[in-house]
Amino acid sequence: MLISGKEKLERMRDGRAIYIGAERVDDVTRHPAFRNAAGTIADLYEFKADPDRRDLFSFEENGERYGLPWLRCRTREDLVRRMRAMKAIADATYGLIGRSPDHVAGLITGLAMKPALLDALTPGFGGNLTRYYEHARKNDLYVSFAVTPPAGIRSREIFTGEARDDPTLQVIAEGDDGVTISGMKMLATGAVFADEVWIGNLTPIDDKRASESITCALPVNTAGVSFWAREPYARHARHEADYPLSFRFDETDTVLVCDVVKVPWERVFLHNNGAMSRRIYIETPANCYQNHQSNVRFWAKMALIVGLASRMCQANGVDRIPAVRDTLGRLAALEATIGGLVNGQIEAYEQWPDGYATPNRRIMYATLNWCQCAAHARGRGAAADAGEH
Amino acid sequence: MLISGKEKLERMRDGRAIYIGAERVDDVTRHPAFRNAAGTIADLYEFKADPDRRDLFSFEENGERYGLPWLRCRTREDLVRRMRAMKAIADATYGLIGRSPDHVAGLITGLAMKPALLDALTPGFGGNLTRYYEHARKNDLYVSFAVTPPAGIRSREIFTGEARDDPTLQVIAEGDDGVTISGMKMLATGAVFADEVWIGNLTPIDDKRASESITCALPVNTAGVSFWAREPYARHARHEADYPLSFRFDETDTVLVCDVVKVPWERVFLHNNGAMSRRIYIETPANCYQNHQSNVRFWAKMALIVGLASRMCQANGVDRIPAVRDTLGRLAALEATIGGLVNGQIEAYEQWPDGYATPNRRIMYATLNWCQCAAHARGRGAAADAGEH
Amino acid sequence: MLISGKEKLERMRDGRAIYIGAERVDDVTRHPAFRNAAGTIADLYEFKADPDRRDLFSFEENGERYGLPWLRCRTREDLVRRMRAMKAIADATYGLIGRSPDHVAGLITGLAMKPALLDALTPGFGGNLTRYYEHARKNDLYVSFAVTPPAGIRSREIFTGEARDDPTLQVIAEGDDGVTISGMKMLATGAVFADEVWIGNLTPIDDKRASESITCALPVNTAGVSFWAREPYARHARHEADYPLSFRFDETDTVLVCDVVKVPWERVFLHNNGAMSRRIYIETPANCYQNHQSNVRFWAKMALIVGLASRMCQANGVDRIPAVRDTLGRLAALEATIGGLVNGQIEAYEQWPDGYATPNRRIMYATLNWCQCAAHARGRGAAADAGEH
Amino acid sequence: MLISGKEKLERMRDGRAIYIGAERVDDVTRHPAFRNAAGTIADLYEFKADPDRRDLFSFEENGERYGLPWLRCRTREDLVRRMRAMKAIADATYGLIGRSPDHVAGLITGLAMKPALLDALTPGFGGNLTRYYEHARKNDLYVSFAVTPPAGIRSREIFTGEARDDPTLQVIAEGDDGVTISGMKMLATGAVFADEVWIGNLTPIDDKRASESITCALPVNTAGVSFWAREPYARHARHEADYPLSFRFDETDTVLVCDVVKVPWERVFLHNNGAMSRRIYIETPANCYQNHQSNVRFWAKMALIVGLASRMCQANGVDRIPAVRDTLGRLAALEATIGGLVNGQIEAYEQWPDGYATPNRRIMYATLNWCQCAAHARGRGAAADAGEH
Repeated sequence: MLISGKEKLERMRDGRAIYIGAERVDDVTRHPAFRNAAGTIADLYEFKADPDRRDLFSFEENGERYGLPWLRCRTREDLVRRMRAMKAIADATYGLIGRSPDHVAGLITGLAMKPALLDALTPGFGGNLTRYYEHARKNDLYVSFAVTPPAGIRSREIFTGEARDDPTLQVIAEGDDGVTISGMKMLATGAVFADEVWIGNLTPIDDKRASESITCALPVNTAGVSFWAREPYARHARHEADYPLSFRFDETDTVLVCDVVKVPWERVFLHNNGAMSRRIYIETPANCYQNHQSNVRFWAKMALIVGLASRMCQANGVDRIPAVRDTLGRLAALEATIGGLVNGQIEAYEQWPDGYATPNRRIMYATLNWCQCAAHARGRGAAADAGEH
Repeated sequence: MLISGKEKLERMRDGRAIYIGAERVDDVTRHPAFRNAAGTIADLYEFKADPDRRDLFSFEENGERYGLPWLRCRTREDLVRRMRAMKAIADATYGLIGRSPDHVAGLITGLAMKPALLDALTPGFGGNLTRYYEHARKNDLYVSFAVTPPAGIRSREIFTGEARDDPTLQVIAEGDDGVTISGMKMLATGAVFADEVWIGNLTPIDDKRASESITCALPVNTAGVSFWAREPYARHARHEADYPLSFRFDETDTVLVCDVVKVPWERVFLHNNGAMSRRIYIETPANCYQNHQSNVRFWAKMALIVGLASRMCQANGVDRIPAVRDTLGRLAALEATIGGLVNGQIEAYEQWPDGYATPNRRIMYATLNWCQCAAHARGRGAAADAGEH
Repeated sequence: MLISGKEKLERMRDGRAIYIGAERVDDVTRHPAFRNAAGTIADLYEFKADPDRRDLFSFEENGERYGLPWLRCRTREDLVRRMRAMKAIADATYGLIGRSPDHVAGLITGLAMKPALLDALTPGFGGNLTRYYEHARKNDLYVSFAVTPPAGIRSREIFTGEARDDPTLQVIAEGDDGVTISGMKMLATGAVFADEVWIGNLTPIDDKRASESITCALPVNTAGVSFWAREPYARHARHEADYPLSFRFDETDTVLVCDVVKVPWERVFLHNNGAMSRRIYIETPANCYQNHQSNVRFWAKMALIVGLASRMCQANGVDRIPAVRDTLGRLAALEATIGGLVNGQIEAYEQWPDGYATPNRRIMYATLNWCQCAAHARGRGAAADAGEH
Repeated sequence: MLISGKEKLERMRDGRAIYIGAERVDDVTRHPAFRNAAGTIADLYEFKADPDRRDLFSFEENGERYGLPWLRCRTREDLVRRMRAMKAIADATYGLIGRSPDHVAGLITGLAMKPALLDALTPGFGGNLTRYYEHARKNDLYVSFAVTPPAGIRSREIFTGEARDDPTLQVIAEGDDGVTISGMKMLATGAVFADEVWIGNLTPIDDKRASESITCALPVNTAGVSFWAREPYARHARHEADYPLSFRFDETDTVLVCDVVKVPWERVFLHNNGAMSRRIYIETPANCYQNHQSNVRFWAKMALIVGLASRMCQANGVDRIPAVRDTLGRLAALEATIGGLVNGQIEAYEQWPDGYATPNRRIMYATLNWCQCAAHARGRGAAADAGEH
């Protein structure tokens, strides 16, 4: 079931602990730093739930309808449908909501196409993942993720693995009913508006730090869980005309802090395995599905850039100057390039075991690389924006 | 019928007038400047004619088999087959024979998908084109082309259109049996080894210069037709080990000179129309098919570059240095990018009137743009190589 | 006489008409949008006036001391002294106050090295300029400038010169006591904190629009003169720690609006000459001195960038990763490059008539070009920042 | 004494062992692969020896005149004179003779400004160096150098230091009268035409390989010494018009092979010290003087590029197209940039112990970095050309 925008707003009022500096935010749907972006997310849900767009945004399985980002594709046509749904979602926010609900949906769906991998690591965890996948798609969940250790301690962690008193989120106890975790994890983008948060690792973990490898998922309003937002841009955007982007599209990054949080076993997908905590995304379609969404979103964003550049040149009356036309033509070619690459991933799609299919991974990673270079060439230093974890 | 390499070599011994400076080349299949490249072309024909590769390189129409580059595609599957044939041709020479027989074949095939355009300009010329298309594919012809005016006089021609005594190839007389042409045209790449030469314009022509708009095709050994080669690289390449590329792959550029040459009407496809002499390629699939081949060839060449870089780093024992690996990874990503773009053109293919299909043109032109930038980034200034006319 | 910071703040409280949207700013030294930057400017004055830095910041002429930016250099040593003073000014704000008082001081000083040019255009105007130069340096004035027509109407103005109802600042009447001007001009950076505003043209003016060529200077608090600020960044910068740059260094751009403003003849330096209204800066040392300051300031800014990058890498513990060290090394090389170019301008200095000297102009313009490319390479799209009018 | 071109040609006929593949070259001044470049070098000597250019090319010390590249500078004026001499030498070959005689002259002169460093490593070696410096400048020697180990074995050497049977030039015996060396060293550019060859290391040497650290100098015709040229370009350049650069300026790279060669102690400057064999150039002015010459030469070459681009655009009639003018303008700015950087090195020159002076080293290295980037931007992959060892 795809839920309405109103339902999505309701879900955001669940007592979640959001902080801006020392300020505890009472209700993210009403707070000036977040209310507009909350509205944008709600609009996205409303847009997707529109019965007239049923085929664009959902698929049927065993008599129930789910959002297309949750589709475990089997054919080229499946991949096309899934991509078009994500493109429509991205277009709706000009690609500016980078971690829209379809991003982590892709990651979870990718894992659900090969749960045996998780089972092989710890018997039963593959089943946990499959049940979580079913739960998430059935409830049209918006899952955000926190998958890197805090900056500033990364190098010691990765490169030398020495003992230290570590603020990184890790398992501090385990028992019959689950594990207990404490510590910080980054960069839970969009978590302020999400339903759940996925905890894991997209950077390599030293095996000596196996307690940090914990991979699990929690509702954002779980006791002991809090999110610490960076300075919200939306707060400065008093007039939409002055800050048309920040005004609506500030999805916000946050630091996830877990303070002695219980995670039941059914929500644990990997434990005590540094190397594999990252590789599960590579050895399943997870990383591919996730980053394919990033490619698609970047495509939408490129259209915004081309359109803006074109309109600005017209407004300034310079659009007929040959050098300007040349530059606009090259920008338009960039939009066609990213579009071509996304299409090429599907044309050259890959078959996986059990009849599944993914976009072509080499082309997908090449697209990430291209996005970083294009972002660079655009003069925006937007590498972090282009390339995903 | 696909002809053998031996037959192709035979055809090159037809009395064609090839000059290197003041030297008239007697037999291109034996002259040290050309014999190796002649052998390379012959090998290509032999390779294509191999019965075991029949499905890779040819298609059936009305009971006869033709080379796949001549296929007027109707479906996505047609486009895939045609692309794979061209990729195999390009791979066979590492993409270094830029104007292999499939290049101009694409241009002619594209025109043959909309001959009504030529008929609308001059009644009967559409039929001329269709018959030439049938003739060329039936005889497995290698057609080269000369489609730009001599450098050094371009600017006056294009930008001011003033009267002058003009060396550019143009019609100097016409009669019942055809037109008479004289003058120079560039840059007939591969003409030394081809069967025919296509004469036309890929740069805009001022309407005052309508006599230069003549678009026609001639056997390379036509009386009055000569080709003046640039300095052949192969001549310096005494040892294959020293010049592995020039030794075999010097396809040569030439200046076409026509000295009072008669062209029968049946070989004329456009006459007296400056603006349209270029636009016929744009308003039909011609330019798209032609440049799609260039994209595919560039893909093959990029694989050579990536492979060479990789082997050189291994040979120097530097392939495990992180900065080198990073660069090799980026090069490999470039190869995947061009591959993704070629595939994307097909995934997003376009429907044309009469049931025909072409690769997506916006993506195709974006790929040309990307090739130029990639060529630049590779530090080879190979813009001319990457972007085609 | 170099004035103190306190005196500078006093001067800002002169009834000047500053607007942020509909809001009239009462006192720029107290308004939250401007008070910190006002303090920064005052600190600069205090810093320069420090008796211990007398030789660094001032020179003596006819028994009086003036700020070094006002020095009409005659020797290489003069150029070195002047550059060092400007570097110290730029370093004091990390190069972030782009239009510090020494910028337009350079422009006026350059004109004062060849006032005969103005006299040749209109007898007496050279004398006006010389007297204004004396006045400005004697009073340690902070002069800002507005030297481009409003964006959006530029193209028609420059390229076609058609008649229209034009918002650009122009002379609407002239009489025995001076001219009357009305209209808008951009981009009076720093005018909010300046003492006077120079009005002129750094873009070419069509001769049909000669009334727009007016070149003059006015106190910022002149009746009928107002400045309309862009959205102030400082207003969002509630905590210095969050916005360390906007907090102090938001010098602000403004649109200058003149509403039927009288300019006495003694303050007019050029009138009714479209072509020369720009060329007076090129044919005198004005443009060179002005942009030399920009080069010097960019040098200071590059040191900030290098330093920040270095500290951020240390803070994240990544500064010893080879790829990071390589990037930091290249950044440090950029700082040395801009330093080398500024020094090179002085080493290769040019002699002018009347014994004057300027930095080498070809190198100076090449430095502007380099700054734009470097800005681009830094991924900041800061061309406007790097290249000056 | 500066010697004449004729004398220089004589010196090249000294029995030196030069090989092109299996072919032993009898007389480099007459062999088609080398005679033109030999003539170019002779012309350079003739040009420098012209009495009318005495002040441009030479300085006086203790009553004798020496070439300016051998000047141990003490003042800014010295640095200016030395730079101007090198610029005139570079201009005479458009910067295409990269290792003209002033290159290694700078390296030796730099060592001669701090011979105590060599003495501190091995007593007496400083004196050896000083006497060699005196000898070289007195005889106007052309010294080439071979300062890197053979490619392909570098990584093992640098990164792991494992035992192997090593083709790298090394000391195989030592006795009272000197050391005996055997092995290969690269990339003795210009050695075919030089008088002597300097052997040493510009890449780091593992201390386990101390026998490779040998730093010495030998006449090119020493028994057991041979030079193996890469494929000469000049051989293909039958007509100057076709290959105007290769025809005259092919200075040639060679692999130096020493086959049990005796080096007397007086020609040894460093022995058995891996780390210092490279650092002696860094801790003296040697590396700075050497690379300053490379910067100056690159400046000359950039002028050739700008000039050629300009002439080609004129010849093609495209020089007035705005986009072309823009590109030509940027190329001209590159020439001014390198000129500005060379001048800036001198303006910001550094004082050394004993009253010596060098160009500013940070700016000099930044210039090397810029040259590599510029070479890259020119699309020539000429990093190796731009950046020197």
